[in-house]
Amino acid sequence: MPLGMDMSVDETTLLQTIFWSVGASRLALSERLDFSKSKTNSLVAALLDVGLLTETGLKASSGGRRPETVQINPSLGVLIAADLGATSLDIAILRPDLSVLARHSEAADVRAGPGLVMARVRVLMRELLAQCATKPQQVIGIGMGVPGPVDFASGQLVNPPLMPQWDSFSIRDALREDFAAPVFVDNDVNTMALGELWRLQRSLQNFLVIKVGTSIGCGIVCHGEVYRGANGSAGDVGHICVDTAGPRCHCGNLGCVEAMAAGPAITRMALEAAISGESALLAACLADTGSITPEDVGNASRHGDAAANRIIQHTGNLIGQMLASVVNFFSPSHVFIGGGITRIGPLFLASVRQSIYQRSLALSTRHLEIQYTPLAEQAGLVGAGVLAMQETLKNKGSPR
Amino acid sequence: MPLGMDMSVDETTLLQTIFWSVGASRLALSERLDFSKSKTNSLVAALLDVGLLTETGLKASSGGRRPETVQINPSLGVLIAADLGATSLDIAILRPDLSVLARHSEAADVRAGPGLVMARVRVLMRELLAQCATKPQQVIGIGMGVPGPVDFASGQLVNPPLMPQWDSFSIRDALREDFAAPVFVDNDVNTMALGELWRLQRSLQNFLVIKVGTSIGCGIVCHGEVYRGANGSAGDVGHICVDTAGPRCHCGNLGCVEAMAAGPAITRMALEAAISGESALLAACLADTGSITPEDVGNASRHGDAAANRIIQHTGNLIGQMLASVVNFFSPSHVFIGGGITRIGPLFLASVRQSIYQRSLALSTRHLEIQYTPLAEQAGLVGAGVLAMQETLKNKGSPR
Repeated sequence: MPLGMDMSVDETTLLQTIFWSVGASRLALSERLDFSKSKTNSLVAALLDVGLLTETGLKASSGGRRPETVQINPSLGVLIAADLGATSLDIAILRPDLSVLARHSEAADVRAGPGLVMARVRVLMRELLAQCATKPQQVIGIGMGVPGPVDFASGQLVNPPLMPQWDSFSIRDALREDFAAPVFVDNDVNTMALGELWRLQRSLQNFLVIKVGTSIGCGIVCHGEVYRGANGSAGDVGHICVDTAGPRCHCGNLGCVEAMAAGPAITRMALEAAISGESALLAACLADTGSITPEDVGNASRHGDAAANRIIQHTGNLIGQMLASVVNFFSPSHVFIGGGITRIGPLFLASVRQSIYQRSLALSTRHLEIQYTPLAEQAGLVGAGVLAMQETLKNKGSPR
Repeated sequence: MPLGMDMSVDETTLLQTIFWSVGASRLALSERLDFSKSKTNSLVAALLDVGLLTETGLKASSGGRRPETVQINPSLGVLIAADLGATSLDIAILRPDLSVLARHSEAADVRAGPGLVMARVRVLMRELLAQCATKPQQVIGIGMGVPGPVDFASGQLVNPPLMPQWDSFSIRDALREDFAAPVFVDNDVNTMALGELWRLQRSLQNFLVIKVGTSIGCGIVCHGEVYRGANGSAGDVGHICVDTAGPRCHCGNLGCVEAMAAGPAITRMALEAAISGESALLAACLADTGSITPEDVGNASRHGDAAANRIIQHTGNLIGQMLASVVNFFSPSHVFIGGGITRIGPLFLASVRQSIYQRSLALSTRHLEIQYTPLAEQAGLVGAGVLAMQETLKNKGSPR
């Protein structure tokens, strides 16, 4: 397999730049790389010769000759991307340009422990590969997002609060039996951030991705790279205090935003509104299905239910209050909000915005954009694919 | 002047690396640059030839031959570093390796406006240059830290709350009459962070510098570079809320940490303790001098004054609470605390630590170090010198 050979730093840099610059001409590549045109052309020619690149035809330029574009050779092999949430599992087989060959999503429960969950992951990976008539040896890299803090170098989870049985479990070892390809593991909100960074082709350098679901986490992009912090735990915003007199969180402190505004808090407030008779719609939902989800609260809100609106505004404001601190500190250009909360609808986003703009300084928010994640529920899976390809390419380079 | 000539990207990169690697051997330089030894040697030889570098003698290596080290030629010229605080002005003439040739400090009041302050800055710069028998034409770069948000590209202040008359004032233009050298301006806490980063020779990649004085600001080092955010306003932590029921800040919100725990808040609490009879020591200080400074509170605390201790613990805890949010989000390896507050003594630092460790997650604080800034009150001035040299070197490189 050509990717296995020794490549120079320049060749690796070129391959990475091509992966991050979909459709870029050779001239555009040489500008991004700060290489001369002749150096870029000869590197491209060498990588075309050995089959690492293929040409992708002509592209209309702004004038003059039509520069040819190149891409990483699709026949090099496939990537496997996996996005494990607290309650869901998504797996896909991707080409090196991240186009999807096969994909599967199902409910999952990480609390069942790594043995059961990883056995299912392996079965699904094999089935999906078979669907696209691909052998495990053709896999060039595997990326996986998980809902807990990860030591990125070892790929192991570190004291994950939602999945205690996974502490120090090696996902890498669990997949080694089936695949020789390298395995890269990261926190799910970091993979979401990486997915959005790739979608944007690095056109934004400093932004945040907030995931609100069972818990609250934050992916940080800084200077055009995902930032993991000194211990790999950067973005742990769920335990930022938003009310010094608030309820006690499982972490031991008072008024953590996660305890007051994540999915379980929304469900709890909705149950109270249903049982107290405050909301006929939520009471009917509870009677029908035996439970209330944040999505049900969103539906009730769309039907004008005052209690549902109050719950959504309250939690949106609390999350906005936490984000105001983060925005004052980090001054990002964009805040993207993702996770299950996005199904709750536009009132939540409006409440978050209102609270951030009220509490942050004018200079930090002058050009700040606050949106739901453009890749929506694909962000984590796309990001796992980016992780697989990017880290595989990095590891192939040998210093001169 | 040799620095004015066109240099290649590789030569510029080498010069920058030498500036950031005091005493590094040629071998160590080639490793840091990821250049081959022969490439590094020939680049070094060329820059020695044109007089941009000089040799600095022999260095004992860990074994074998003794590698020679090089430095930027001290005779190239001088740097001017200026650190303007809300109430102080420090200016120094430095060699390219940041050793001090001349230095002057005096009280200043930025509220006097840019006309008066910059006239004084220009007088002092000329006097200090004369002291070391150096002409304005020998200045190769000027760096200046100012106590307000700066648009780094234009070098202009943007809505600075402590110095409203300076809004959109061009420090660059004000110095252009006297000096042809490039002028770089940054927020004072960013220059402090840059100073510590240079002292550490980039051995730490992700850390924070908090300045607590008249206001509260934060310098951010991320991936080994000072991070300024999307609008250049990153690190504006003074208006993070630490008490939703707290007093109203001049920014319009309630419970901002700056309103509750910066220098003026400490002074206000100390005056109350003096007047109410709670503290005989602070009352005596007030009677003696007609005012109480945070330093007086520190002195009273060292003499066992209970009211002074309470004020220091209270403000330290509030600042620690703000930092806990920031640490959860950013997960730095170190938090350095600087500014006038450091004169208050060790109880303040202990109170900040206590509060951070209580409110941050274990994973973020497992290896976290919290200290007063090692460069102390030199950090801003050193950083202004680093800014001058680093940006001058960057601007000299021409793309290949």
